[in-house]
Amino acid sequence: MKLNEEIIIELLGTVAFTISGAFSAMQKRLDVFGVLVIAFVTAIGGGTLRDVLIGYTPVTWMRNMNDALIILGTALAAIFFKKYIKNFKTTLFLFDALGLGLFTIIGMQKGLDAGLNPVVCVMLGTITGCFGGVLRDVLLNNIPTIFRRKELYATACIIGGMLYLSLMQFLDANIARLVAIICICGMRILAVVYGWKLPVR
Amino acid sequence: MKLNEEIIIELLGTVAFTISGAFSAMQKRLDVFGVLVIAFVTAIGGGTLRDVLIGYTPVTWMRNMNDALIILGTALAAIFFKKYIKNFKTTLFLFDALGLGLFTIIGMQKGLDAGLNPVVCVMLGTITGCFGGVLRDVLLNNIPTIFRRKELYATACIIGGMLYLSLMQFLDANIARLVAIICICGMRILAVVYGWKLPVR
Amino acid sequence: MKLNEEIIIELLGTVAFTISGAFSAMQKRLDVFGVLVIAFVTAIGGGTLRDVLIGYTPVTWMRNMNDALIILGTALAAIFFKKYIKNFKTTLFLFDALGLGLFTIIGMQKGLDAGLNPVVCVMLGTITGCFGGVLRDVLLNNIPTIFRRKELYATACIIGGMLYLSLMQFLDANIARLVAIICICGMRILAVVYGWKLPVR
Repeated sequence: MKLNEEIIIELLGTVAFTISGAFSAMQKRLDVFGVLVIAFVTAIGGGTLRDVLIGYTPVTWMRNMNDALIILGTALAAIFFKKYIKNFKTTLFLFDALGLGLFTIIGMQKGLDAGLNPVVCVMLGTITGCFGGVLRDVLLNNIPTIFRRKELYATACIIGGMLYLSLMQFLDANIARLVAIICICGMRILAVVYGWKLPVR
Repeated sequence: MKLNEEIIIELLGTVAFTISGAFSAMQKRLDVFGVLVIAFVTAIGGGTLRDVLIGYTPVTWMRNMNDALIILGTALAAIFFKKYIKNFKTTLFLFDALGLGLFTIIGMQKGLDAGLNPVVCVMLGTITGCFGGVLRDVLLNNIPTIFRRKELYATACIIGGMLYLSLMQFLDANIARLVAIICICGMRILAVVYGWKLPVR
Repeated sequence: MKLNEEIIIELLGTVAFTISGAFSAMQKRLDVFGVLVIAFVTAIGGGTLRDVLIGYTPVTWMRNMNDALIILGTALAAIFFKKYIKNFKTTLFLFDALGLGLFTIIGMQKGLDAGLNPVVCVMLGTITGCFGGVLRDVLLNNIPTIFRRKELYATACIIGGMLYLSLMQFLDANIARLVAIICICGMRILAVVYGWKLPVR
């Protein structure tokens, strides 16, 4: 892992999550500081909860200032170029899907490295991928969108995580990871294109 | 501790908390994944916050997959047998009261084992018993019910916790625990039967 | 640090945060227990999140029962003397500003002591100063006030934190801290007096 391509995708994922947080906050008419905080929380929330739950402290984003500076720069750019970024909705959505896949598998790997059992690792990966958005919604006083009727999101993480566990048995770990990441992104994209949703009871 | 009866009661408590979370989520028309997450959070929220605060990581439910599977199975059952379970309101309420008592005393014991002072341990027990429901309400965008006018809930935990501290001085620990658990359940049940509430200022 | 004056100011800050939480909760018509919890969370929320993020567990307020008892006493006083305290709005506001400055610098110092990089320490200080109020608002089902248009709050923490980092280079640490604390309080007070706010996009 950690090929150049993956570092770039992780970066793009962080950027996409940051922008998604910034836009949600601007829609609620928060002030500039509020927008920065929501953007930050959206980008690091999932990884932070994962680190706290497994006891990996100080949490990842505190270990150097790269994450903080990247998120700050991105959020400021989102604020200043608000009008232009709106036209890149599709691009943003694709980044978000890439970030979701990568964050999920990174989170799972951290759990496996810590010796946790596989079922728990799938949950940990899903938390890593999805919880930033949950925190964003709670802080903005909305019911988290991933709990409501929308196109598959967390479900893609769970299926991709289980796929990764299966593939690891007989494929090289790097290849298994790559396939799982592509599967999560792909499912998420197809779900939006074809309107795949979970039932409501 | 850990007699067979107590393992069963702990299980029933987890089941009751899971079902209570699942029903709250279904009332808000969440999709199936949302219902599972809210059910899960309601069941493990209190213990997770306790573990994070005292630094017992990975947190309890991550150490094996029993909790995850029990909660998953229970929540799925709640979803599929929604109509029938509704008729067991009283049964559910009694499980919840049992779970409340047991979780509170388990939480306190963890604090005492970690050498924390007794006042803090009562708070830790109360957090363990009550915080799952608080998280459930925050995620569903409600003001937590235990903060509003309703029958004694956390108050029963606090009184039961203080009773446990007193009884420990001159009784066998197992007996003191049992009495405290019964006291918490009993107070909660009586509070609902007789409508005992705290005043509002 | 830890001159007598500072212990007193820290105490006053805790008291002010407690009272601010208690009043917010009483406005929402919570019962007595709800008021106590919200008061408690407002007072210790920022420090608790800081401790969890850097892995300093059991978290500070659990290490002895002073914090718990001070907050309990203060919150009960706020409940019983509700009518009279309302007339001390200005006094409360000044305590809150003092607490904000002191909590921010205490939080930063913990980060520096843990060897975290300076940018992260400023964020940690800001979290320590502000997060109690954020949690209070989330539990009361409001969008956190510090994210919305109001007089500078977190911004004062950030500027004061950066000032502290600069001053440390060539001043005695105690003096640098004192200046930074005064700067944060002062900015907050001037912001309210002159209506300084951040722009909304």
